[in-house]
Amino acid sequence: MKDPLKTLRETRPLIHHITNWVTIYDCANITRAFGALPVMAHAREECADMTGIASALVINIGTLTSELIDCMIISAAAANKKGTPVVLDAVGVGATKFRDDMAAKILNSARVDIIKGNYSEVAKLAGEHAQTKGVEATSIDADPLQVAKALAGSRSCTVVMTGKEDIISDGKRTYIVRNGHERMGSIVGTGCMAASIIGSFASVNSDHCDAAKDTLCYFGVAGELAAAKSEGPGTFKMYLYDEVANLTDEKVKPLMDFEEL
Amino acid sequence: MKDPLKTLRETRPLIHHITNWVTIYDCANITRAFGALPVMAHAREECADMTGIASALVINIGTLTSELIDCMIISAAAANKKGTPVVLDAVGVGATKFRDDMAAKILNSARVDIIKGNYSEVAKLAGEHAQTKGVEATSIDADPLQVAKALAGSRSCTVVMTGKEDIISDGKRTYIVRNGHERMGSIVGTGCMAASIIGSFASVNSDHCDAAKDTLCYFGVAGELAAAKSEGPGTFKMYLYDEVANLTDEKVKPLMDFEEL
Amino acid sequence: MKDPLKTLRETRPLIHHITNWVTIYDCANITRAFGALPVMAHAREECADMTGIASALVINIGTLTSELIDCMIISAAAANKKGTPVVLDAVGVGATKFRDDMAAKILNSARVDIIKGNYSEVAKLAGEHAQTKGVEATSIDADPLQVAKALAGSRSCTVVMTGKEDIISDGKRTYIVRNGHERMGSIVGTGCMAASIIGSFASVNSDHCDAAKDTLCYFGVAGELAAAKSEGPGTFKMYLYDEVANLTDEKVKPLMDFEEL
Repeated sequence: MKDPLKTLRETRPLIHHITNWVTIYDCANITRAFGALPVMAHAREECADMTGIASALVINIGTLTSELIDCMIISAAAANKKGTPVVLDAVGVGATKFRDDMAAKILNSARVDIIKGNYSEVAKLAGEHAQTKGVEATSIDADPLQVAKALAGSRSCTVVMTGKEDIISDGKRTYIVRNGHERMGSIVGTGCMAASIIGSFASVNSDHCDAAKDTLCYFGVAGELAAAKSEGPGTFKMYLYDEVANLTDEKVKPLMDFEEL
Repeated sequence: MKDPLKTLRETRPLIHHITNWVTIYDCANITRAFGALPVMAHAREECADMTGIASALVINIGTLTSELIDCMIISAAAANKKGTPVVLDAVGVGATKFRDDMAAKILNSARVDIIKGNYSEVAKLAGEHAQTKGVEATSIDADPLQVAKALAGSRSCTVVMTGKEDIISDGKRTYIVRNGHERMGSIVGTGCMAASIIGSFASVNSDHCDAAKDTLCYFGVAGELAAAKSEGPGTFKMYLYDEVANLTDEKVKPLMDFEEL
Repeated sequence: MKDPLKTLRETRPLIHHITNWVTIYDCANITRAFGALPVMAHAREECADMTGIASALVINIGTLTSELIDCMIISAAAANKKGTPVVLDAVGVGATKFRDDMAAKILNSARVDIIKGNYSEVAKLAGEHAQTKGVEATSIDADPLQVAKALAGSRSCTVVMTGKEDIISDGKRTYIVRNGHERMGSIVGTGCMAASIIGSFASVNSDHCDAAKDTLCYFGVAGELAAAKSEGPGTFKMYLYDEVANLTDEKVKPLMDFEEL
């Protein structure tokens, strides 16, 4: 897509979230800063209706309960029916059996278009041996590129593995994105925010592999620009929002650092 | 009221909230920055008791569930019994039938002193044809001034419609407030924050129309001052809190931009 | 402990929280800024498992429900079994009977290693006459030093009372900490954040009285440094995170202001 940010800002799609209580505010705000409209509605009675008027659904299991998982599945089914893209952020998979089981339940109950997680979360989803330290990745034995490709192939979806280098694969194409800054890991929530942005870009770009690559480049560039001005996580977070809101396609293009394998 | 901010800061009223999980932190912080004391307690077993020691109740249906609506009604009934002002922020009414039904259930179960929403939320509550895009207003066919007046008259309450121009009416008096800055719409939560501040001012001013007008002028002036210093939503939000905390009645008065119709 | 911060940053312990929806984001972020890894998982089905891989458990009853209290007790029991330290932040005890009852239920169902609260919350827990204005302390009749000592003695735990002067006692030793700045009280959440940090330091220091004293000195010094740069609660909060992340044991030591009684 030629000008993804311009397209997003002109379209102003509604991005429905069923997400976690830790980063819910940041998911909403980053969606807004990129130019889309966030909404968060997790009541069983309305979640399908809200999905029905939305252009993407982002589900994030960070503070899951059984009830929330049910609502995520109801919402994903509503999205599937309309062909609305569904993003799953598999927060904490690999930390407890319950998370592993609930992520599997979602994947087996509805079509997920984009699966996102850190290296150990995605490896665990792919059936590899992996442990997540709460919501923090630990090193994995398997080759991350192969893990992403294999999961994307077996689930017929796009897989996004975030880490020092981000990997994106739809089973056929695979990108590595090197934008970003370590300060993005010094605050809580940048991973969750990335899922919201992926949902936003995917709502205006049916090539989800491309939408995820654009997300990680654009958000990564904003992170690099914010890091250059900041002196710690407090100033970094503030400047991150300014930089995101002030991004343009023209500004980002020469700074994009990705590779197609 | 002559010096609403001074009065609020000397009184330090307790403002009880049953609100949404997206902006709950900002509702608490802005209440504190204006000089009141926020509390958020949504358990069915204690919500009436907490309302009993509070000077205002703010209910916000942004992330409603059936259980939360029940607790809002229990709390509102407790507030009604003591004559404590109740503010309803009708977030997302017009987006799903469930929201419309739950807002109606609240209004039919308890006395709400101040109804607040954006143009399409309030229009929908007033029985007009209106659709809300998630939690974002869309344009309405009806005349907003007539909508506000009619709803205030039929519900015997104060109605606050926020937008580029804010409209406040108790059915007899109607104010238009022009303070504020478009940057307030660039971050999530300023609408919810306004409801918390309305509750705060209403707790020390039995003229709720006046309390709502003061809120939107004072908060709007803080937004204007913060916007002048900021370069994006991150710096804006930070300065907004500084400006609110550093407001005085003397500083705001010459900057108030409102009209009584 | 000689270099608590260096130790914490090298260990990177996982700190499990079951906390409130108002300050959950700040609890996570401050844990990260100090160098530990936060996780928040309140589902009944996984809370014991998540506690099992954590190095401390922080429970905070700010927005309690009966269901959350059950999960806190399940988690605390799991922590007790492994000898993992448990911190209880008794938010709002003294405001409603339900809070008083639920805090008592936790304390009678599991071993709590560190009880934290403001003056009226702790006094109420200790059986004194005390009222909390929502989550805000009110003045108490009893001598706070005696209250802290007596509760620590009767519960065989460490008690932390926060206020203008912080009191820490394990029944034998008692510290008074004078670090901190009034601006810490101008924003919502610094009390909750302190509980998260106490859990972090206690996870690497079996002397919990010492860990709590270190917390209040280190966090207090960061607050003093941030206050010196800030012009209101917005800039203060931003700088607080920067200062915490940039603390070192060497920087804090000459600024620590505490007394052992």
